[in-house]
Amino acid sequence: MRVFNFSAGPAVLPEVVLQRAAAEMLDWHGSGMSVMEMSHRGKEFISIAERAEADLRALLAIPKHYKVLFLQGGAIGENAIVPMNLVNGRAVADYVDTGEWSKKSLKEARKYCTVNVAASASDRGYTYVPPQSSWQLTPGAAYVHVCTNETIGGVEYGFTPDTGDVPLVADMSSHLLSRVVDVAKYGVIYGGAQKNMGPAGLTLVIVRDDLLDRALPITPSAFHWQEQAAADSMLNTPATYSIYIAGLVFEWLLAQGGVAAIERVNVAKSKLLYDYLDGSSFFRNDVLPQDRSRMNVPFKLADPALDGEFLKGAEQHGMVQLKGHRAVGGMRASIYNAMPMAGVQALVDYMREFERRRG
Amino acid sequence: MRVFNFSAGPAVLPEVVLQRAAAEMLDWHGSGMSVMEMSHRGKEFISIAERAEADLRALLAIPKHYKVLFLQGGAIGENAIVPMNLVNGRAVADYVDTGEWSKKSLKEARKYCTVNVAASASDRGYTYVPPQSSWQLTPGAAYVHVCTNETIGGVEYGFTPDTGDVPLVADMSSHLLSRVVDVAKYGVIYGGAQKNMGPAGLTLVIVRDDLLDRALPITPSAFHWQEQAAADSMLNTPATYSIYIAGLVFEWLLAQGGVAAIERVNVAKSKLLYDYLDGSSFFRNDVLPQDRSRMNVPFKLADPALDGEFLKGAEQHGMVQLKGHRAVGGMRASIYNAMPMAGVQALVDYMREFERRRG
Repeated sequence: MRVFNFSAGPAVLPEVVLQRAAAEMLDWHGSGMSVMEMSHRGKEFISIAERAEADLRALLAIPKHYKVLFLQGGAIGENAIVPMNLVNGRAVADYVDTGEWSKKSLKEARKYCTVNVAASASDRGYTYVPPQSSWQLTPGAAYVHVCTNETIGGVEYGFTPDTGDVPLVADMSSHLLSRVVDVAKYGVIYGGAQKNMGPAGLTLVIVRDDLLDRALPITPSAFHWQEQAAADSMLNTPATYSIYIAGLVFEWLLAQGGVAAIERVNVAKSKLLYDYLDGSSFFRNDVLPQDRSRMNVPFKLADPALDGEFLKGAEQHGMVQLKGHRAVGGMRASIYNAMPMAGVQALVDYMREFERRRG
Repeated sequence: MRVFNFSAGPAVLPEVVLQRAAAEMLDWHGSGMSVMEMSHRGKEFISIAERAEADLRALLAIPKHYKVLFLQGGAIGENAIVPMNLVNGRAVADYVDTGEWSKKSLKEARKYCTVNVAASASDRGYTYVPPQSSWQLTPGAAYVHVCTNETIGGVEYGFTPDTGDVPLVADMSSHLLSRVVDVAKYGVIYGGAQKNMGPAGLTLVIVRDDLLDRALPITPSAFHWQEQAAADSMLNTPATYSIYIAGLVFEWLLAQGGVAAIERVNVAKSKLLYDYLDGSSFFRNDVLPQDRSRMNVPFKLADPALDGEFLKGAEQHGMVQLKGHRAVGGMRASIYNAMPMAGVQALVDYMREFERRRG
């Protein structure tokens, strides 16, 4: 029996995607091969990769002057790869610090450039997004880096920053494809796949063409955006099976009506959970309401001594991976695109029952 | 119907592995989750990763003072990551050039250190391994790098180099797990998974403990061996599903009797093909017999105008991906562990029939 899986990533995938992957495992479309066994340069896999890119471009309305790269190394790898590819000739990069993932990113960037922390939400425990009016940006910076959804803190940007001529670079790992985004406002969008796209080990980079000539000479070829763009992400063997699964997820998302349609569902799902939290005297979420993430909902019990009992009961009700990140404790419900409303409803029902019994 | 797939990588996988992956796709061992959906920090996936590492250690008899890392980026990524992790305080690295993959490796290394080409087989079109007596090694070099199986040229080391106190670093991507190897003679062994291990996107690094303190400060955390070793390869989210598939391949290999047993099969498979080639007046392989690869067998037709007809006929007989690498042309049969003897026999039968008809 399938469970409701609230893992922050790797995370729940649409059941129809898994069913199709299982059915096609030994013989993809009469090729006599698993997708895992296909040469990345064969016509079968090329067709899979091209379809995946085309569907992603349709889903996000990616303009033609942006390249879509399917790379490896995850967002933490990309935290180094971003400055490597962008700081040649520009010594300073601006970072907005909204939590654990921002901190990881800027720490890694310090290996390659001077980092200016343009704003930080550390003063209030990373429970909000500093409004852009408070940012201290560096004129002529290589780029401005934001993490538009903090998976651990549960903080999400409700606005698109305006950084003028300085390219805006966004780690969107944990909310990419969950809401409409105006790609043209960004220089680079990147993210690990293991939230709303597919298996871990695949990294998406969407980069504007004019930013492809700024790489440091030390940039490894496998992670060099310009070289990978020139080779259609096949300078090295890409994570072929992960691209295939991501492609199936894109097809599923198109069948749901696309990103705008899934965004409406995500608004409804998160509202159900936050409304319950705000009405509860036993559970709470500390994030400023306007900056709350629709994807990752951290919450705390009034009595942390009951955390274990809460988690155990949830498992007995078929709800798993609700334990909060070790950096912040408490609980966290990650409710990505593939989490159905029924899963969120089941969680709220269980919380209500738990509160009545133990609150 | 399954085909005989001679792809150089991604490549054929054992059918039982694919069957099990398909059967477990929606619900791994009663967890209610696909392995793709599991948190890498959950008990289910930790058990999968630990089992995979233990089985790999058993298969290769990896000594305790070596770390096993499951990383990302493939061998081409690792071509940069190797020098990044090893050249701190040592300015020169020695490279032995035996073909396309050696050339890629040393070109990438030049971004991080001075490269000394200690020997090269370019003088005879990369058809042999230069004997160690001819190598011009640098005293006190950071390491000596070899590619012990050239996937494109079909050249394989039949000996283990002795580099004294200088660490020996080997790219074993395309023959790892195909033959017994004395890990203790190497400082570092690395390889992409997509030949004998599993899906593309997973990179194996086996590194001796005392080499973990030589990384350049610019090494990205996701590719920093010491940091990844300290985190059991989970400093970032690893390629979880690929590790699971690799684990199933390891289990299959143990069930075949381990590496020594599969090596005997590989000797027999490659002998069947090379014996036929050497007896043919229509097909030929140009590699020095003692240096021929058991995994990748390039061959040429006497009349290249017949290449297309040969490939088309092979496909009609259920044999695919026999076209040689674009860098060298001709044909190539990659006959990894998962290629059964029946596949090699079918190929030889077809070649014999083709030669009789068109030779």
